[in-house]
Amino acid sequence: MTRDVYAESGSRDILAEMATTCDLLLTNAHVLTLDEQFTAFPSGAVAIDNGRILDVGDIAANYTARDTIDCRGRIVMPGLINAHTHAPMTLLRGLADDLRLDVWLLGYMMPVEREFVRPEFVALGTKLACAEMIRSGTTCFADMYYFEDSVAEASADAGMRALCGQTVLKFPSPDAASYEDSLALARRFIERWKGHPLIVPAPAPHAPYTCTVEILRACAEMAAEFDVPLHTHLSETTFEVDQSRQEHGMPVIPWVKKNRLFDARVLAAHCVHVDDGEIRALEAAGAGVAHNPTSNLKLGSGIAPAARMLELGVQVGIGTDGCASNNDLDMFEEMRLAALLAKGFSGNPTAIPAKQALAMSTRIGARALHIGDVTGSLEPGKRADLIVLELTQAHSWPPFERDPDAVYSRIVYSAKAGDVVDVMCDGKWLMRDRQLLTLDEGELHRAAADVARRIDRFLLQREQSVLQKLIAIGGATEQESFEVQAKARVASAETVHNALASDDITVIRGVHYHQYDTYFYFDAEQGRLRYREDEFLDDAGKVVNARARLTLTGPSREAAFGSVLLFRSRFLAPASHTPRFYREYFRPTREREVEKDRRRWLVAYRGVQFYVHLDRLLSPAVEGYFVEVKSRTWSRRDAQDKAAIIADLLQRLGANASETIEADYVDL
Amino acid sequence: MTRDVYAESGSRDILAEMATTCDLLLTNAHVLTLDEQFTAFPSGAVAIDNGRILDVGDIAANYTARDTIDCRGRIVMPGLINAHTHAPMTLLRGLADDLRLDVWLLGYMMPVEREFVRPEFVALGTKLACAEMIRSGTTCFADMYYFEDSVAEASADAGMRALCGQTVLKFPSPDAASYEDSLALARRFIERWKGHPLIVPAPAPHAPYTCTVEILRACAEMAAEFDVPLHTHLSETTFEVDQSRQEHGMPVIPWVKKNRLFDARVLAAHCVHVDDGEIRALEAAGAGVAHNPTSNLKLGSGIAPAARMLELGVQVGIGTDGCASNNDLDMFEEMRLAALLAKGFSGNPTAIPAKQALAMSTRIGARALHIGDVTGSLEPGKRADLIVLELTQAHSWPPFERDPDAVYSRIVYSAKAGDVVDVMCDGKWLMRDRQLLTLDEGELHRAAADVARRIDRFLLQREQSVLQKLIAIGGATEQESFEVQAKARVASAETVHNALASDDITVIRGVHYHQYDTYFYFDAEQGRLRYREDEFLDDAGKVVNARARLTLTGPSREAAFGSVLLFRSRFLAPASHTPRFYREYFRPTREREVEKDRRRWLVAYRGVQFYVHLDRLLSPAVEGYFVEVKSRTWSRRDAQDKAAIIADLLQRLGANASETIEADYVDL
Repeated sequence: MTRDVYAESGSRDILAEMATTCDLLLTNAHVLTLDEQFTAFPSGAVAIDNGRILDVGDIAANYTARDTIDCRGRIVMPGLINAHTHAPMTLLRGLADDLRLDVWLLGYMMPVEREFVRPEFVALGTKLACAEMIRSGTTCFADMYYFEDSVAEASADAGMRALCGQTVLKFPSPDAASYEDSLALARRFIERWKGHPLIVPAPAPHAPYTCTVEILRACAEMAAEFDVPLHTHLSETTFEVDQSRQEHGMPVIPWVKKNRLFDARVLAAHCVHVDDGEIRALEAAGAGVAHNPTSNLKLGSGIAPAARMLELGVQVGIGTDGCASNNDLDMFEEMRLAALLAKGFSGNPTAIPAKQALAMSTRIGARALHIGDVTGSLEPGKRADLIVLELTQAHSWPPFERDPDAVYSRIVYSAKAGDVVDVMCDGKWLMRDRQLLTLDEGELHRAAADVARRIDRFLLQREQSVLQKLIAIGGATEQESFEVQAKARVASAETVHNALASDDITVIRGVHYHQYDTYFYFDAEQGRLRYREDEFLDDAGKVVNARARLTLTGPSREAAFGSVLLFRSRFLAPASHTPRFYREYFRPTREREVEKDRRRWLVAYRGVQFYVHLDRLLSPAVEGYFVEVKSRTWSRRDAQDKAAIIADLLQRLGANASETIEADYVDL
Repeated sequence: MTRDVYAESGSRDILAEMATTCDLLLTNAHVLTLDEQFTAFPSGAVAIDNGRILDVGDIAANYTARDTIDCRGRIVMPGLINAHTHAPMTLLRGLADDLRLDVWLLGYMMPVEREFVRPEFVALGTKLACAEMIRSGTTCFADMYYFEDSVAEASADAGMRALCGQTVLKFPSPDAASYEDSLALARRFIERWKGHPLIVPAPAPHAPYTCTVEILRACAEMAAEFDVPLHTHLSETTFEVDQSRQEHGMPVIPWVKKNRLFDARVLAAHCVHVDDGEIRALEAAGAGVAHNPTSNLKLGSGIAPAARMLELGVQVGIGTDGCASNNDLDMFEEMRLAALLAKGFSGNPTAIPAKQALAMSTRIGARALHIGDVTGSLEPGKRADLIVLELTQAHSWPPFERDPDAVYSRIVYSAKAGDVVDVMCDGKWLMRDRQLLTLDEGELHRAAADVARRIDRFLLQREQSVLQKLIAIGGATEQESFEVQAKARVASAETVHNALASDDITVIRGVHYHQYDTYFYFDAEQGRLRYREDEFLDDAGKVVNARARLTLTGPSREAAFGSVLLFRSRFLAPASHTPRFYREYFRPTREREVEKDRRRWLVAYRGVQFYVHLDRLLSPAVEGYFVEVKSRTWSRRDAQDKAAIIADLLQRLGANASETIEADYVDL
């Protein structure tokens, strides 16, 4: 039974009766299917029924639709797919920028997350993210965060498609006290969402360096058991790769392969530092990659070899990463950058042409997420995830039509998020005529501004005190101590050595350091922070060991007993970060450095133990030698008693106790 | 006379009378002055009078204004400065993308410019560019193009500030038949515009490699004579730098310095490939640099060391370059990319923080253009070039206020062109509430679409014919010729050598080649294009010289005289580009290669001159030797006569004239 038979009858009614009925017909559009052949229809139609794409092409006449929308002068294409983000972090957009990765992560992101991340925070952040994503033409995203249940609920409520990864970490996290809890949470999460029309649940072991081998294996097994993808971060920084080489004797990709991560269908974010062999391993494992050009640039991680990965057959999607490192969720900016960066990186202006960048953000992205059968192109049978663009603004004008590929160039190189007019996901309109239909933006904005104010308050409070700021980054043990001490010049080192060799002074032990002190200064009441690095020297003067400690000292001494001073200090040891970290994190008002050679002895004299230092100042250089005598003290009485002995001992060591020096070396 | 005296009087009227009168007061704004200290006022005011900034800060009470605008919840900051563009090329946006520089430039831009660039085109393109720039918050731009008079007129009409550079080239250009004309044009242009309130005229020697030393010197002298800046392109590609090293024994910057270009106040676009020494030379010369990150990536030129240049004291502004290589004029995208790229390039996430990127797009940009005294920051005495931003959309939410620098981060990392609400230049509103006030966008769009259609038609017509396409890129001399020729196998090379040594054949000259032929195939009527590279071999078989030629041959032979065939061919010599260029430019449907060893003699036989080829096919390899005999011919009668002699000669050379081969080697 051909249509011609009926056409000959000349009856329009009969034709209409024979036409298939559908829910919606988008007509007269420039339809870009983004299918494998990049089929396009300069004036085509899309028939949608029951949330599904029924037909695409010059097919308007074959359908009777309950609703028809004339898309003349507009482009209809698949919704964009954001292949990697942390949606709730939209609430942390612009919180702290232009910082080094460790300062940003350990100094800001993690303390704030520890304090604020609860299910309500996650739900609100996800809704705010959905509003932004829908406005910028994204219909589907791959997520990874804590309390992923709330991400899934909020996304489904907003009508968006999402691959939701429940984070698993070896550390305690906002939603799990241990990694066993974390794994159990991931399992319950998958059980709850498996089979949902919009949500694909996944375990998300955060990264090889934040997980144990057991976690990686358990997650891969869980993904295989439930037949769901697995979302993770791989090879983001050279630091990560170097560390993997050191600890495991191989880079990240072979390491996780060896530990059978690829038993699961993996979506790997970043893959910035991968060589051809690793790319081939990813391809062979059927792993999808999420390329995050903005985040990788902004955090100084590098530039992923996206063009090469595509060339070797890897499905490479494009992601924005979280808003805290981007700072938005705009896939138009992201695909433009992916296309540009590939060219600048290789010196080849034909690398990742516009067409390919758009495919990465649609069809290829869907495959990277392992949902290529459901979405990513306008093909009969796929779900109706699509957007309508109007490229009539100044920044998109004029239009050239000679080259059928020019439309891809217009979308990637000059269109903006604001050119998206309508957005549909799973056959349901999420935005019409730039009005969001599933989210109350006013309410979201009010609530988000409130959270921002609370975070601002939290950080301001913390930043009022250097000590609080130190505690906020963890590992800082507050430990108060009092010390009596005196310092004086000595004529020569010999007098000290001779005195120590005498019978009435017992040397319990001795050590030789090269000591580097960096003092950070703050406003008046904040005291100063000393970062001290001790290099332990052997008898030949060679460095045999090193350690670093932080000490926060108050602004002034507590008391004086003659020339002997009583100090209070707070020891905060050890210093696990570099001076650079502390500098950028604490932002001192100024900074000074002192370098010295120190011989330090623990001695017993008149029944009391003292530390004796014989110091030579190297930088800033000061002529001659200094001797310091100090002892812990526990009471004013004890301090007073020890002060008398110190004065005596100083004299024995060749110093004049009446010419002691009150100033610290740094203040000389 | 202090204000307090009057304040004590308690009379508001007196206060109001004492307040200075001004044209306009913007109140309650988050004012970012972008001055040297980055002074900002979370709720400040800007007083404007007679196009000039009168006062900035918490100063609203000091002024009575004829007009007051409440900017509550909005940001007021200096207008953005686009430090390098070719405004009229906005009409070529998206015309040809993802091509190599030479294909893009020689294959598309230059032929289209030759055909279309007239004063009206330039005026229209500039107006379209101004519409886009105003919409995206740009109030000032540095331009370089042909018919710059029309750029200046259109910009001034649109109310924008511009540094307009009249291009000078050593080649004929759309507005000058010779470089003397070009220089004269530049002089007249400067004379006309010097002193204009919005336009700063400048000579614009295009680049060192497109100018002669005389042009560079003449332009520098002209700029000095009129005390205007000079706009040029420097060190954009490694190719340019390598060429400079080869030709002049030094890279670009020392070369132009030696030739006294820096006698002028230079604005140098790109500076992608410059080392520390060259950067110091730029700094010492007081040259400003326009960093064009998108264009440099898109054309595969590289990544300029912008952070290093700033560090060494160079004034580095940010530019979009022309729309044909960007493809828009959006300074928000450009400064974001500048900030991101510096981080990714150096691996240092603190490189070019948001604040600095914004300064590059305002205050520092103005200095790079040598107009820092006039614009670039909101400071009393400067002209009122400012924009009003509203950062309340989803992509900018929520706002953090703890860190006073967070506002710069919001503007650079998440704000978009569409967040610009109002734009003022020289005290005049160019946009209010997103409505353009000085340009009729509807009319501009209609006219631009019409130009695009005409360009489409021109290129479509050209692309219908391989020959026309070849002529379009210039240098192709169409030269028709007819040849009679015959080809046959010979048993051995020896028979040929022996015959040539015989008395009745005179060898006039002989040559030995290694010949590489690349055949590009097109649709039926287009014929095929042969790219032939001849390597000339000496007696020892070593390459002593090489040349490349292009030949377009028709689809079939013209006639046959027995075994001798008559061919028509069009010679288009020499081939100045690489096979890769022609491949990407012509986009053949398929391609084949033939490699052979050829000995070629010019011989005289029976009073007629012939070429004799003794060929051995190397790839695809064919056993044995072939001999070809051919001669130019001018008439059917002549062809017929020569055909008879060729048949005879073939036999003399050891071939059987009745077993000739009709096929080309490529078709064997």
